[in-house]
Amino acid sequence: MTDEANARHTEKMRKIKAARDKMMATKTEEKGLIMVHTGPGKGKSSSGFGMIMRCIAHGMPCAVVQFIKGGRDVGERAFLRERFADECRFFVSGEGFTWETQDRERDIAAAQRGWEIAKEQILDPEIQFVLLDEINIALRYDYLDIDEVVDFLLSQKPAMTHVCLTGRNAKPELIEAADLVTEMTLIKHPFRDGVKAQQGVEF
Amino acid sequence: MTDEANARHTEKMRKIKAARDKMMATKTEEKGLIMVHTGPGKGKSSSGFGMIMRCIAHGMPCAVVQFIKGGRDVGERAFLRERFADECRFFVSGEGFTWETQDRERDIAAAQRGWEIAKEQILDPEIQFVLLDEINIALRYDYLDIDEVVDFLLSQKPAMTHVCLTGRNAKPELIEAADLVTEMTLIKHPFRDGVKAQQGVEF
Repeated sequence: MTDEANARHTEKMRKIKAARDKMMATKTEEKGLIMVHTGPGKGKSSSGFGMIMRCIAHGMPCAVVQFIKGGRDVGERAFLRERFADECRFFVSGEGFTWETQDRERDIAAAQRGWEIAKEQILDPEIQFVLLDEINIALRYDYLDIDEVVDFLLSQKPAMTHVCLTGRNAKPELIEAADLVTEMTLIKHPFRDGVKAQQGVEF
Repeated sequence: MTDEANARHTEKMRKIKAARDKMMATKTEEKGLIMVHTGPGKGKSSSGFGMIMRCIAHGMPCAVVQFIKGGRDVGERAFLRERFADECRFFVSGEGFTWETQDRERDIAAAQRGWEIAKEQILDPEIQFVLLDEINIALRYDYLDIDEVVDFLLSQKPAMTHVCLTGRNAKPELIEAADLVTEMTLIKHPFRDGVKAQQGVEF
């Protein structure tokens, strides 16, 4: 990065931090969290779905918006839709076609539709927890504007609503804005030994 | 560590690796995995429960053995017991009293009972996935013998059964024996800002 780009970056981070500090200052001990699960390891989505299970257990209405690239049917989608439609709203951005079409316009349109749904769910006073699964992928490729997403989370998210954003390569702006960031680090993976993705574990 | 202790450690790791390689050599592409979720970050247990949700979704019979220290009622326990008793067996080692009694004998007895249940569930041909939640705590304090646990997993676990072991400070012997190890790293945590543990997020 050039010096100028570095300075812009620093100033941007400072502003995000100031906005976050301002928001934090208004908070008592309980507050809705902005959570990020990132890193190359496993467990980013599955721990998001583990929290969805906790919400359902506690009777906290929740929503999932999945920003998917491929069409593989993951177990939790049908499960939540069939058995917990009243407790958890489930949306898939890009459903019905794959992001692997190499059609960038279409990818962007799908991500944008997902983000519109995400905003509605976050703003809905009935919903207490929103999982934005794999949104970091859409942010990484600039299908969504990081500034718009961070600004919305810091200025418009209802105070008590939790939002969890998952996916590799979380942008630094999002990490700066977040309350809780966990990086999943891969120490050892069976794919290296030729074992394929398996039902119940990866999907 | 002394040189002698170092040499013993190296030899022990070599033996574990040889046992693991022998087991791996007998495997085709699909196999039951030994998975470890460790590290100081969030998501170790919740991603384990996310996989339990996937198993239930796929109709894969599963079991949870919780090695708990405190008595706090986590949401997933009542949820799984009340609504998925047929799909997921749920056991709590140490239930009915707390490990915070400072009574080491009692703690050891509780952990041992949990481990006996764990072995039964892992050996049960009907069960396809076993979550040993927070077992690393019991191993860390030597309430359970690490050699016995690792030896059982490598030599007696049915080939297609998945076992996931969670908790901080996983012992090196377990990491050596495992197929898939993920470390959850804490990048940022709201407790630092005085925010307390909240329903749906931490429990």
